[in-house]
Amino acid sequence: MSNNVTCALLLLSLFLSVSPVASSAQSLADRLGYPAGTKLVIIHADDLGETHAVNAAAIKSLEAGAINSASLMVPCPWFPEIADYAKSHPAADFGLHLTVTSERVYYRWGPVAAADKIRSLLDENGYFHHDWDQNPRIKPEEVEIELRAQIERALAMGVRPTHLDSHQYRLIMYGKDLFEALLRVAHAYKLPVFVTRDWFADHPYLQESLRPDDLVLDHTVTIGPEVPPEKWTEFYISALKNLKPGVTEFVIHPGFDDEELRAATRERSTWGSAWRQRDFDFFTSNQFREILVQQNVKLITWRELAMAARK
Amino acid sequence: MSNNVTCALLLLSLFLSVSPVASSAQSLADRLGYPAGTKLVIIHADDLGETHAVNAAAIKSLEAGAINSASLMVPCPWFPEIADYAKSHPAADFGLHLTVTSERVYYRWGPVAAADKIRSLLDENGYFHHDWDQNPRIKPEEVEIELRAQIERALAMGVRPTHLDSHQYRLIMYGKDLFEALLRVAHAYKLPVFVTRDWFADHPYLQESLRPDDLVLDHTVTIGPEVPPEKWTEFYISALKNLKPGVTEFVIHPGFDDEELRAATRERSTWGSAWRQRDFDFFTSNQFREILVQQNVKLITWRELAMAARK
Repeated sequence: MSNNVTCALLLLSLFLSVSPVASSAQSLADRLGYPAGTKLVIIHADDLGETHAVNAAAIKSLEAGAINSASLMVPCPWFPEIADYAKSHPAADFGLHLTVTSERVYYRWGPVAAADKIRSLLDENGYFHHDWDQNPRIKPEEVEIELRAQIERALAMGVRPTHLDSHQYRLIMYGKDLFEALLRVAHAYKLPVFVTRDWFADHPYLQESLRPDDLVLDHTVTIGPEVPPEKWTEFYISALKNLKPGVTEFVIHPGFDDEELRAATRERSTWGSAWRQRDFDFFTSNQFREILVQQNVKLITWRELAMAARK
Repeated sequence: MSNNVTCALLLLSLFLSVSPVASSAQSLADRLGYPAGTKLVIIHADDLGETHAVNAAAIKSLEAGAINSASLMVPCPWFPEIADYAKSHPAADFGLHLTVTSERVYYRWGPVAAADKIRSLLDENGYFHHDWDQNPRIKPEEVEIELRAQIERALAMGVRPTHLDSHQYRLIMYGKDLFEALLRVAHAYKLPVFVTRDWFADHPYLQESLRPDDLVLDHTVTIGPEVPPEKWTEFYISALKNLKPGVTEFVIHPGFDDEELRAATRERSTWGSAWRQRDFDFFTSNQFREILVQQNVKLITWRELAMAARK
């Protein structure tokens, strides 16, 4: 065997042993020191900063132990409230919920970067696009400018993010170019990105674009519009009883069904104020606490995962 | 007498007879056809668009006849809600509350214009300055860019403003250069600006900068932090009983003392949620309706004033 081949095999073996992308679903759990088959869960709240009702519900959820991680929308008007909380609670597991859409009708926001640098992200009134159903030509280089501006504002305001994720999965599910823009920014700031193996089949570019040292979760659970309100508890209980081994992120949306959130979300019921109140109610219930114990679920945070990945 | 002198005198006489700036306190009322001594009042709500609680209270006040005019903050996240209302209620008397500060702590907003075109208006995080107490060098040419962007967004979103005024009086009370930037924009869009004769003594540049054809109100009444909550009704009743002849604008701040507005304004009580609830309560009371009748007050709108001024 030539030296070159030996060297290549050594590198390959090194790659396989340290790569969360290439290794088995258990690798993260293994590296954290948990026995095979352990079910690790992040209970993660999205959309902090979007409204006060979401901030207030997230803080209450966090302090009640109902969630153990969350991510913040920097362009939104209530970001200063949650940034202030994050600054005074540096142990809390807060990421940035990178945002390039403004999906509501009566309550809207625009970019952090200068508008003339990121025109492809904006509608004719200067807000982020309400949706991309008209196929606006979103320029990845402009996405990158905006994401960097969001991270820089968060850092300047005292937030020390543990991870990055993408509002409405816009930077994950909408093509390789946007995902790679997100990855470039994540690598530049040395932050893990919320990606799961579950998505690789439908979006093969995810696996292709990830680097060997990128952290990848195993599974995710999130409730969708197909679940009627009266089946909410049943859905979550079933998901918790049927957890697979490895690391699963529950993406939830706690909020209070009050005047502000009702008005902000009134054009449709999906991810609306009653929806968010149901999430808050289930995850702050005793039933949820009990099932975690029954199912021997271990909670884990993005901070712990990132530390494990660095080892 | 030479032709030139005759011509100059003719022009001067014409100037004096049509000039709201130069003519007596009664001129506006006169031109509206009211007898001498008539007390004309605009009941004007500020800050629409800032929060949902303010929008909801303003719409309720308007529909109850408690206010007859209001102005909208274009850069704020709830502007789309009130713009939608304005578009579907084109007879309502809505102006634009031009905004170049973001005076709250936990809830903030930034510019409509591209940030890199108006840097002097922004703090280190990209919001409008919280205050100007650190004497930032506000560039009048940048103010003009931002004001035009606010008006253009409002027009694009279907608002047909009847007048302009200035959030926190920043473009009125902070020097000739900013006032002239406001006037240039007002003249370009042919919109009247809220200015009263009462302010001329303290700010002589106002009178110097105004054009002969600019509309000028006579008086304004607004409640201040020196009035304790228990004297709220007494203050307004006294103001209404002691109205002077001419046109007086009451600048009020109706809002609902709910979760959203309490959180948005919690760092100080001035112009806070309880303050705004007190304004809402007084102006929607029977007591207010009765005193208007007792004092023989005539209500008037900016639309009517502008029409009279054009005659």
